Amino acid sequence: MYTGNEKILGIDPGYARCGYGVIGKERNIPVAYIWGCIQTTPKTGDSPERLLIIYESIENLIITYKPVCLVCEKLFFSRNTTTAMQVSEARGVIILAAARHHIPVYEYTPKQVKLAITGSGNADKKQIQMMITRLLRLSDIPKPDDAADGLALALCHMNWMRTA
Amino acid sequence: MYTGNEKILGIDPGYARCGYGVIGKERNIPVAYIWGCIQTTPKTGDSPERLLIIYESIENLIITYKPVCLVCEKLFFSRNTTTAMQVSEARGVIILAAARHHIPVYEYTPKQVKLAITGSGNADKKQIQMMITRLLRLSDIPKPDDAADGLALALCHMNWMRTA
Repeated sequence: MYTGNEKILGIDPGYARCGYGVIGKERNIPVAYIWGCIQTTPKTGDSPERLLIIYESIENLIITYKPVCLVCEKLFFSRNTTTAMQVSEARGVIILAAARHHIPVYEYTPKQVKLAITGSGNADKKQIQMMITRLLRLSDIPKPDDAADGLALALCHMNWMRTA
Repeated sequence: MYTGNEKILGIDPGYARCGYGVIGKERNIPVAYIWGCIQTTPKTGDSPERLLIIYESIENLIITYKPVCLVCEKLFFSRNTTTAMQVSEARGVIILAAARHHIPVYEYTPKQVKLAITGSGNADKKQIQMMITRLLRLSDIPKPDDAADGLALALCHMNWMRTA
């Protein structure tokens, strides 16, 4: 059972944009510690450099916040195979960062996240963002969308751990 | 221009089987220093552990043989998307290993490899293996096939560097 003080790192994997959020609990209330987006572009460098930036950013989050686990979105078939393969390369280095720091990886589908956050597997992006803002007592909807998705994944896992 | 003593690490990326080969030149003659296959199975562990094994094995090859570059097969759309995504995750950690050790990554399609090794883009696996065996003066066809593919990628790049 999830007891509270442990931090959870949620990652919305991507090659060009990778959202993240770290949450925990204080006095049994969910709290967000950091959220944001790792962005890489062709100007950032070629594929190895972009993957290195993603890996090192995730590693820095793990070292700084010491989460007990990493939660990553499960990828589904995309019509754009090039995109699917690039996101998978990013997923590879994200999962590796967790493995190298000995923290387990949990994966959820977008539907599972929607269900955990709003109670409906068909909720739209706006509903999810409203619920995240309320659950984490934020003054504004977390921006950019990728960061909100990272927080949503972490919250989904916190909810799952509570009810497991 | 490729002058000779530098070693080249060729990788046939895979999630379950990842072939590799390190080659160089001695007195202007291509030489193979090591070849083999990194195998991971569900028994090896779950996804993070399997990616970690691949990453650490590639890193060990880089540290031990100090290649000047890593050559990796370019992945194309596969009908089996699950396989394509898993191979991409493996590719991600392989490319990351090169980036973290500051060596460049070169990529070739299977057709480019066939062309470089046999002079024909339509050569079959057997022809490629025969040519590798001859070019590297090996006593037998390198086994398993994945290892032969790793050597073929390295030879393809050596050939390309020679003519560049």
